[in-house]
Amino acid sequence: MKYTEFEIISRYFQRNQKKDCNEIKGIGDDSALIKIPKNNVLAISTDTLVEGTHFLKDISPEDLAYKTIAVNLSDLAAMGANPKWTTLSITMPKSDSLWLAKFSNSFFDMLNKYSVKLIGGDTNCGPLSITLSIYGLLKKNTALLRSNANVGDLIYVTGTLGASAAGLFLLKKKIFIKNANVRNYLIKKHLNPVPRVFEGIALRKIANAAIDISDGLISDLSHILNNSQCGANINLNMLPISKVLINNFQHQYCLDWALNIGEDYELCFTVSRKNIKKMDLIKKKFLVNFTCIGYVTPIEQGFNFFYNKKKIILNKNGFDHFN
Amino acid sequence: MKYTEFEIISRYFQRNQKKDCNEIKGIGDDSALIKIPKNNVLAISTDTLVEGTHFLKDISPEDLAYKTIAVNLSDLAAMGANPKWTTLSITMPKSDSLWLAKFSNSFFDMLNKYSVKLIGGDTNCGPLSITLSIYGLLKKNTALLRSNANVGDLIYVTGTLGASAAGLFLLKKKIFIKNANVRNYLIKKHLNPVPRVFEGIALRKIANAAIDISDGLISDLSHILNNSQCGANINLNMLPISKVLINNFQHQYCLDWALNIGEDYELCFTVSRKNIKKMDLIKKKFLVNFTCIGYVTPIEQGFNFFYNKKKIILNKNGFDHFN
Repeated sequence: MKYTEFEIISRYFQRNQKKDCNEIKGIGDDSALIKIPKNNVLAISTDTLVEGTHFLKDISPEDLAYKTIAVNLSDLAAMGANPKWTTLSITMPKSDSLWLAKFSNSFFDMLNKYSVKLIGGDTNCGPLSITLSIYGLLKKNTALLRSNANVGDLIYVTGTLGASAAGLFLLKKKIFIKNANVRNYLIKKHLNPVPRVFEGIALRKIANAAIDISDGLISDLSHILNNSQCGANINLNMLPISKVLINNFQHQYCLDWALNIGEDYELCFTVSRKNIKKMDLIKKKFLVNFTCIGYVTPIEQGFNFFYNKKKIILNKNGFDHFN
Repeated sequence: MKYTEFEIISRYFQRNQKKDCNEIKGIGDDSALIKIPKNNVLAISTDTLVEGTHFLKDISPEDLAYKTIAVNLSDLAAMGANPKWTTLSITMPKSDSLWLAKFSNSFFDMLNKYSVKLIGGDTNCGPLSITLSIYGLLKKNTALLRSNANVGDLIYVTGTLGASAAGLFLLKKKIFIKNANVRNYLIKKHLNPVPRVFEGIALRKIANAAIDISDGLISDLSHILNNSQCGANINLNMLPISKVLINNFQHQYCLDWALNIGEDYELCFTVSRKNIKKMDLIKKKFLVNFTCIGYVTPIEQGFNFFYNKKKIILNKNGFDHFN
């Protein structure tokens, strides 16, 4: 069954989501209209997912919808913002009703889980690609900026690193593993990363700077260091590499996946030593661990890595879409 | 010369645009941060342009940048919003420095013309496609909603209709014309439509409902009528068809282009008869004409067209991306 553009919107994307008092106009006019509560600022983030670059051709519509929202929520999490609204621009080769039903059901499941309302968007015909813009709220002066790290801050990451990369390589058939449970676990870590939204919100009272790990720890932490004009010493022995990786792959692969590939969508953040006790209290609320992997140094000391107490040289490139 | 994703952003898209007191954080963090002034609401609109659907393969980077911004500004104009900020997601097959220089120069020329600041976005590798989200401000309760037309309102359109469609058909080699001036004029109307931003802002004190003509007058006016639960009588003799069209093409083609093809990005709006004098005063400030083409009727009377005082039956389909 084929639908027109307007039918696609009304059938699949105009749903009865709970309306918030700050939404004046949602889908159905030339633009959406929202109010921003007093003393709040609006955080705006946008991410495009393109077939072949951000997801493989055979991805299920459910996983694609999940991932599109997860990567955008992750950007808000890295600011400590409360997600509120989203707009969806979807370009697809044809209007396939089964695909659209699956995509939109998964899309709204994920939005509802995080209390995010779809307020507008665009539907087009062309090679499959999705752009989501996501909007969140923050009290003034509470954002976790990349530029706020200070010398002496401890550097933390949430959860574990590397499993998403291994999942991607399994899907691409670049690596193989017999154990189906392990295989499925790693692929799920790649397809359904959990954005650290609630952790980000809790950390905005505690942390100084934060970023989400989308391009690889080295590349993403570099952004904090460059923006804050600092260096860092990282203890690679402390890296929270997924145990499933350690038990199934050579250590050098695990390290490379954790440092250079990204797509874990964990948070990397810096905390002043005076806030560590507060952070330990907050940490108990969450199922994921917060692991200290190093500390911020003066810029002159550079970005250094230590393994078994010896300084080592690493390739510092994260993922780049054009190379 | 090929650049990485981060080099593309810093070389071409991180420019010294005037910073506004409501912008807290622009490009360079996980999200942008903006404040909304007291008693204002934020208008959000997003549009994707895909190669082959919204623009032809051989479009110049300058025209593509212009059109991307123009169609988005046009959505804000139809709400009567003041444009303020934008985010750009650009997907392109390769990082071509000449293309990027031309695109970004034209992009910023257009943004600066309308005092719009680029505050974020995303750069990706894939088939050429551009998604722009645009943000504007409005005083509370002043938006020109599609749902606000009332029975008895007069229906107006700005400027002239049909030239953009003729320009598109010339580019697609579906029609031909010898006169180079006429040809260039029509193609320019297609590639460089002028969004009626300032007209929209002036009209928010005067008009009831508005929409921009992107899919064709019939399709777009239908949205106002459906949302307002009204009908309309349209006098086709009053349609402001571009004189260049009238002088060069058969009348039936001109009518079809004006009614069904769209891409004129003129405003269609309704005005209560008691506001006509106020509107005539405002009209004098602008170079474009505002033409009355009919009036709003009760819904039971339907959507009717008259030509030489006779009721006629028209095909009421605008442009649809999937058919």
